[in-house]
Amino acid sequence: MKAEIIAVGTELLLGQIVNSNAQFLSVELAALGIDVYFQTVVGDNSVRLQEAIEIAKGRADLILFTGGIGPTEDDLTKDALAASLGRGLHIDQLAMNHVDQFFSNRGVPMTENNRKQALVIDDSTPLPNETGLAVGLAISHEDNYYVVLPGPPREMKPMFTQQAKPWLLQHALTDETPLYSKMLKFAGIGESLLEDKLINLIHGQNDPTIAPYAKEGEVTVRISTKAPSDSEAMKKLDALEEQIRTILPENLYASTDVPMEKVIVDWMASTGLTLSCAESCTGGLLMESITSIPGSSSMFMGGIVCYSNEMKQKLLNVPKNYLEGEGAFGAVSREVAEVLAEQVRITAGTDYGLSITGVAGPGSSERKPVGLVYIGIAEKDGKTEVFELKLSGNRENIRIRSVKAILYRLWRRLAEHKADTPL
Amino acid sequence: MKAEIIAVGTELLLGQIVNSNAQFLSVELAALGIDVYFQTVVGDNSVRLQEAIEIAKGRADLILFTGGIGPTEDDLTKDALAASLGRGLHIDQLAMNHVDQFFSNRGVPMTENNRKQALVIDDSTPLPNETGLAVGLAISHEDNYYVVLPGPPREMKPMFTQQAKPWLLQHALTDETPLYSKMLKFAGIGESLLEDKLINLIHGQNDPTIAPYAKEGEVTVRISTKAPSDSEAMKKLDALEEQIRTILPENLYASTDVPMEKVIVDWMASTGLTLSCAESCTGGLLMESITSIPGSSSMFMGGIVCYSNEMKQKLLNVPKNYLEGEGAFGAVSREVAEVLAEQVRITAGTDYGLSITGVAGPGSSERKPVGLVYIGIAEKDGKTEVFELKLSGNRENIRIRSVKAILYRLWRRLAEHKADTPL
Repeated sequence: MKAEIIAVGTELLLGQIVNSNAQFLSVELAALGIDVYFQTVVGDNSVRLQEAIEIAKGRADLILFTGGIGPTEDDLTKDALAASLGRGLHIDQLAMNHVDQFFSNRGVPMTENNRKQALVIDDSTPLPNETGLAVGLAISHEDNYYVVLPGPPREMKPMFTQQAKPWLLQHALTDETPLYSKMLKFAGIGESLLEDKLINLIHGQNDPTIAPYAKEGEVTVRISTKAPSDSEAMKKLDALEEQIRTILPENLYASTDVPMEKVIVDWMASTGLTLSCAESCTGGLLMESITSIPGSSSMFMGGIVCYSNEMKQKLLNVPKNYLEGEGAFGAVSREVAEVLAEQVRITAGTDYGLSITGVAGPGSSERKPVGLVYIGIAEKDGKTEVFELKLSGNRENIRIRSVKAILYRLWRRLAEHKADTPL
Repeated sequence: MKAEIIAVGTELLLGQIVNSNAQFLSVELAALGIDVYFQTVVGDNSVRLQEAIEIAKGRADLILFTGGIGPTEDDLTKDALAASLGRGLHIDQLAMNHVDQFFSNRGVPMTENNRKQALVIDDSTPLPNETGLAVGLAISHEDNYYVVLPGPPREMKPMFTQQAKPWLLQHALTDETPLYSKMLKFAGIGESLLEDKLINLIHGQNDPTIAPYAKEGEVTVRISTKAPSDSEAMKKLDALEEQIRTILPENLYASTDVPMEKVIVDWMASTGLTLSCAESCTGGLLMESITSIPGSSSMFMGGIVCYSNEMKQKLLNVPKNYLEGEGAFGAVSREVAEVLAEQVRITAGTDYGLSITGVAGPGSSERKPVGLVYIGIAEKDGKTEVFELKLSGNRENIRIRSVKAILYRLWRRLAEHKADTPL
């Protein structure tokens, strides 16, 4: 099946935002065995949008739209598609209730233009918007399938995964041999080294296929195979996964697309272990990533962002002479990372205590180079480990990579205490 | 002048990379007063690429290509364009020398396929590649202008700025007036209400144009005008900005594309004010967003993530009977938000203390609904304010919106102490 993605929005044509929706959908469609032949971006202009639809009709079986379904006057996607299909539009009552509910919950009066967000094309399947207001839709018309999704990624992604994907599997992909994939997640290893280690495996076979790609600070390998049944596919995928695990046992941390923090949160929660953190240069990013996982409240007690030296002394008992004066180690040091990890663990009374202190940049501090970071792990009745990192990239990269690094080290430490991995 | 950007590369259609080239070029072209009407992505396929070229010819005056000019067999851009223009290709001697030089410098033998990177279309202007090997080109043919650029951003960007842009100004833009824009950023107001307030202004005029759009939790308005000179443009844009400010004085927080946290960090740093935070349900997201801004270390001292009730009692002196027992307020309450803000301010010895406590979900807690959040602002020698929020969306949305809300309230509080805004 051939697909085209049409992103609607003048902000894309002005370069105010990058078209990350097209990337997300392309990956998802590839995983469904659908070939994306074109991605198109068109502005909030009715005539040009309809031109784009006519072109797409002729060269794609499936056309996905993102954007242009909000409340404002330049949100034109549904109108343009309805016109090009010769169909009408009507208010979807469930969607309208959802919009009304939103405003009454907030105690804010609903302005009239918000009714627009509940519009759907006649005889289409409404796709509920669980993270926003504008309802999406899916429709089969003549030889084409159409899916209309919101522009904001936080609304588009869940609507595709939870609403549009099942609709496609049921209506559009009935006679395709389904493609089954597994996402293998790796930590503590770079893309090129990983590819190097797997190169023989990658070249040695083409079913299942092996596709590595790198995201910010972590590497993912997608293994895929087409098979008539789930069980046949899984047999092939599981076998390959085991081969890869034997090559990289210390790096393969999950065989579903979950972040390391989720593996850690679930593991510690299920085994009754608790965690606390002391962050300097990452300023809360570590704790934010842990608490982004539902269920973290049962294993994460809290922590301290000790951005200033005063906070390091006052709340985490870092000796003043560690931080200041002639020959002091300085805030960015192995010694301070050690104290931070141990003291936050004691203060919070947790099984593990993590610490991060470093120079995120842009400027250097204490005459130490940007990218120098120390991360510490303290453990109840266990030894405290401190690791030195020399990271490259900008402030954001360095902060993210510091967090990835300490999470990886915690995962390794937890694994040492367990014969079998949590996977 | 109407432009279309055609990005060539199957890796884009597979979602392996995001089309950041289109964003970069769109911004550059807008600044030149060129309207980008379409962005197209097509794979490394000769037939589909030529289809895309024919479509673009009919709807754009200027067509820019990125990608598909490397040494490999799937690099087809120059061949496809040459075919569609009915022209030949030849080796550009300067480009060939550049390629030879590269290999001889490295002492590596040049493989034959690298000669391809020196190819240009007959009677075109070669665009030297200062950061890579593949030569680009610019060409005027019948009613269209064509510019061919490399795919890797580190090659494409300098080639556009140093080679293609001057070519365009000299050959294609002799009679264009440049476009000037301003980004107005709003907080504490939704997209629909904002448009409702500005609707008369939006309808009442088309120069400067007014384009509102919503990002996660905030609204942006771009005002744009074409003018012969910077000063004339700014006069028109500033006048309109003032009109909008009079309508929404409590929501317009910046007239450049900066996040609220940057405005607050810069403001507090420049006035010597300091800040600390106590976070429960947001788990560090507030402090992470503040410390993501370079320079925050001079105004942000740190804070506490008091995820558990024990941490709220131990580190922030929340009375036990506030949290537990018959008729207790509970952790998610106005009273606890107040204590958290005041205690973290005192502990850190800062001018302001912020607090967030709420139910981010997915599950409710203390029999309180998901989305109920209390945010507090404590101020040295000032009164403590607590606001109740009823937010919708998933865990991530609720956490982000809670942070946006407290930042907005802090900005308002800072503004109250200042006759003029920081803008």
